[in-house]
Amino acid sequence: MRHVYVNGDFLPETEARVSIFDRGFLFADGVYEVTLVLDGKLVDFSGHMARLRRSLGELDMRFSLTEESLLAIHRELIERNEIGEGLVYLQVTRGAADRDFIFPQESTPNTVVLFTQKKAIVDSALAARGQHVVTLDDLRWRRCDIKTVQLLYPSMAKMQAKAQGADDAWLVKDGFITEGSSNNAYIVTTDGTIVTRDLSADILHGITREAVLHCASDLQLRIEERPFTVEEIENAAEAFSTSASGLVNPVVNINGKPIGVGKPGAITAHLRQIYVERSRASAI
Amino acid sequence: MRHVYVNGDFLPETEARVSIFDRGFLFADGVYEVTLVLDGKLVDFSGHMARLRRSLGELDMRFSLTEESLLAIHRELIERNEIGEGLVYLQVTRGAADRDFIFPQESTPNTVVLFTQKKAIVDSALAARGQHVVTLDDLRWRRCDIKTVQLLYPSMAKMQAKAQGADDAWLVKDGFITEGSSNNAYIVTTDGTIVTRDLSADILHGITREAVLHCASDLQLRIEERPFTVEEIENAAEAFSTSASGLVNPVVNINGKPIGVGKPGAITAHLRQIYVERSRASAI
Repeated sequence: MRHVYVNGDFLPETEARVSIFDRGFLFADGVYEVTLVLDGKLVDFSGHMARLRRSLGELDMRFSLTEESLLAIHRELIERNEIGEGLVYLQVTRGAADRDFIFPQESTPNTVVLFTQKKAIVDSALAARGQHVVTLDDLRWRRCDIKTVQLLYPSMAKMQAKAQGADDAWLVKDGFITEGSSNNAYIVTTDGTIVTRDLSADILHGITREAVLHCASDLQLRIEERPFTVEEIENAAEAFSTSASGLVNPVVNINGKPIGVGKPGAITAHLRQIYVERSRASAI
Repeated sequence: MRHVYVNGDFLPETEARVSIFDRGFLFADGVYEVTLVLDGKLVDFSGHMARLRRSLGELDMRFSLTEESLLAIHRELIERNEIGEGLVYLQVTRGAADRDFIFPQESTPNTVVLFTQKKAIVDSALAARGQHVVTLDDLRWRRCDIKTVQLLYPSMAKMQAKAQGADDAWLVKDGFITEGSSNNAYIVTTDGTIVTRDLSADILHGITREAVLHCASDLQLRIEERPFTVEEIENAAEAFSTSASGLVNPVVNINGKPIGVGKPGAITAHLRQIYVERSRASAI
């Protein structure tokens, strides 16, 4: 039985509940982070906490737990649930109040929920085979830089991809890829340049994205942060996505067409390996 | 103490909880309806239930409760909570499952939550004074015809309106009004024509909108369903919004500029009166 954290208590998952008046439930008025666990330790924890604070700030949501308290809760859950490899999920909402579009009083306590997921992350069959993706219109709201729980469209997009026999969807806005359903998107051009969309309100500012771009830079790879088209993907040598749960995840097929030779690429594999090594070394 | 309904049980509101793994909480994977109560009876109940079924269908969300069962629950809550005038809120989610963007098995039971709010609806100080609105960019997702709980932006928009000293926000997309933060938007031109945006994925297909347009048609008023601009609002004779909780609600000022003479208009008042009369007569 998994133990989870809800507002100060560690509880068996079956007893973990929130009020039906929670604004996370009624208004999707909540933000979240998912932190990778390798060897029982947290990867890029302070990066996730910095992004959490940014999301909270953009929504004018007060939150009083310190980074130290949150670290202690993460570690307690990793220990209780014996997570060697997997994820810790953290969600913060504006709390429970009678339903009103107007925010509740600032004294309303946040709702804070954490739980773990045990998963094989590094040794992944999907990464070995390479993902097939399809493109779909990006119908999400226009503040995708805020990591809110408004995840219905990404969830629908993943289902549509699955219905088409693919593993994931890459989203298209005004003719350019924004990102994957729950990951950032990249191509490697035939001259070895890594191309990924520049940061804006159109995409999540991925913690893994930042770390992987550092790896690429240290490997002397050329990086272009700019929008790219589906046609550029079709003509690319390699493609991949990044996320806390997918690490550096090769993409070998788009809309039924192979990318490059249709197999995980060498630069992608190298970046994945370097990223995992660095993550293991820096995890806390 | 209010009584609410959660998955088959009538409970005191303080005991009404859902799992932290509910997809309504983690993914905003839920839809809702708000039905007006006048004289202890439900207004346009079957219209709300038809729209609920449409929302569920658009999200491929199975739901087994019949309209008769839902009517019985609505009535039980009205009786227990002695609601003469107010609202009944109903939310249906895809249920609780370990977190995954992929939908859970179809056998996963929905979460069904209902609660009431006692409110003076017809005798409204705001309707007597007339609302002040400001315009804001419409940043919502692109399926606003589905009544999901992804309500964070409407909530933020209402707060921004409040911060500017206004009562509500009207949202603008590509130069045209879509709708209010939680209501449909209308102008009455100087020649007495009622203009409101045509139905599409850009707006909620309001149950009150449909009923009020019927009233207008029966009153031999000319109706144009088409997008309109802020400039047209500034030059209009009257403006108003419609919703279950606001009925026909006059708008007298936009971005600090009076609309018409800056007071609730005669056609708006007439429509409000007729709509309330018909709602009282047809409520069940």
